[in-house]
Amino acid sequence: MQILRQMSSAPRLEPHRRRAGPCWGGTQRRCHHPVVEMLDLPFLPFCIFLGLLGFVCVAFVSAWCQYWRGGFAWDGSTQMFNWHPVLMVTGMVVLYGAASLVYRLPSSWSGPKLPWKVLHSSLALAAFILAVLGLVAVFRFHNDHGTPNMYSLHSWLGLATILLFSCQWLMGFSTFLLPWAPAWLRGLYKPIHVFFGSTILLLAVASCVSGINEKLFFSLKNGTTQYKLLPAEAVFANTLGLLILLFGVLVLGALARPSWKRPDADSLDSCQPLLADER
Amino acid sequence: MQILRQMSSAPRLEPHRRRAGPCWGGTQRRCHHPVVEMLDLPFLPFCIFLGLLGFVCVAFVSAWCQYWRGGFAWDGSTQMFNWHPVLMVTGMVVLYGAASLVYRLPSSWSGPKLPWKVLHSSLALAAFILAVLGLVAVFRFHNDHGTPNMYSLHSWLGLATILLFSCQWLMGFSTFLLPWAPAWLRGLYKPIHVFFGSTILLLAVASCVSGINEKLFFSLKNGTTQYKLLPAEAVFANTLGLLILLFGVLVLGALARPSWKRPDADSLDSCQPLLADER
Repeated sequence: MQILRQMSSAPRLEPHRRRAGPCWGGTQRRCHHPVVEMLDLPFLPFCIFLGLLGFVCVAFVSAWCQYWRGGFAWDGSTQMFNWHPVLMVTGMVVLYGAASLVYRLPSSWSGPKLPWKVLHSSLALAAFILAVLGLVAVFRFHNDHGTPNMYSLHSWLGLATILLFSCQWLMGFSTFLLPWAPAWLRGLYKPIHVFFGSTILLLAVASCVSGINEKLFFSLKNGTTQYKLLPAEAVFANTLGLLILLFGVLVLGALARPSWKRPDADSLDSCQPLLADER
Repeated sequence: MQILRQMSSAPRLEPHRRRAGPCWGGTQRRCHHPVVEMLDLPFLPFCIFLGLLGFVCVAFVSAWCQYWRGGFAWDGSTQMFNWHPVLMVTGMVVLYGAASLVYRLPSSWSGPKLPWKVLHSSLALAAFILAVLGLVAVFRFHNDHGTPNMYSLHSWLGLATILLFSCQWLMGFSTFLLPWAPAWLRGLYKPIHVFFGSTILLLAVASCVSGINEKLFFSLKNGTTQYKLLPAEAVFANTLGLLILLFGVLVLGALARPSWKRPDADSLDSCQPLLADER
């Protein structure tokens, strides 16, 4: 920060003033106006909308694979591949998004933190297990058909996302749930965990979009239904891609929104071992 | 916020306490530790690194199109298509990223705001012009080859991104640069502008990744260099995709980092007409 301080000739405000955010929602201090306050967005209705949107994403990807791609099986066939998009969207987007928003629930702001930590890590673990099963589906399909693995940008990005996610989960578990991490390490790692939490969701969404695009180019290449003619399947799967993007953007927006953050995000308590000091 | 207040039994803190962020950088108040403070990241070296990374992205996409895809022309040929990735990466990722970070420069925190607003909107306008030229390149190529436009998820997403960007620029220009918007409207629109600013970058990065993936499937389909065999071009372009993602993630992380935000982001001044009240 030394360089910044030297460069800026403006009087520096105290941290609590510097952190004050934009004039949105119930947190603005100066730009009061009835219209501004009227448009304040409550978390709960937003959360219900997000849940419905997540359900629609899972329903769309399942319907796509069931109706146009021949349904599901676990036998190395193309029906086994169909588990890949369904498990990835359900795990890496919808369940992961739900896990990331646990601490935005106002009911998590009071009382013991441990149950919310367990919920957060359990949802993330469930997302991770689905993602690994999704990987198994595509690797087995490729291997049974003699198709090389890991050549496309989609595959590079997807695997990088899941590797990052595995590091994120293990680091989060050992730092925040196990009792031996010192307070300073929790304080140091927390913003890194938060940053990579959003980053992994962004990468997962980019992986899904590139994966849907790739799958449509693979699947719709014969004369009657090729992608270029925009058959019903293409419209449906393109819409799925946009819905996934909308879900990701809304989750990332909710995570970044200051007035929805846990009030004591910077308190001493959040930097102390939780299993050891649980209330 | 009424629902949130009713749901939460925790004592609500004052806005300046609620906004205090995680224990990272020079802004934490309680979790002091030498290691934490040592890892504080200064903006300027980060900015230089980001500039280099942006330059590498532009160099990579240009080299890909020049070396493997036959170079550039403006005649409806495949050489004309090659302008599409170069202009999109340069405009919608690198220049757009630079525009979005203008207010993170500490030198923009003091003195008149108008020059920084002009710089922000000029960089964004330059990004928009390059993006429109990039669209012209791909539409003309498609039309001259009888290829349908706007069928792939990449094209839907890309066009949606540029339409959003055009709204964002026009709304930003008429609200923050022209003098007739009232203070409450600026206060209301500012967080929306900030939110869509990050969203558009996320969509642009997802568009680039899906576009590179799509282009490689189109280009590398003959026996000797097909994508599945991972020739040098595929490794190079996949790496380009990952570099673009890294650039996007770093810009979005920098935008979200509380200690790099303009200190008076919520002051009365930021809600007043700037051309009218310029210091």
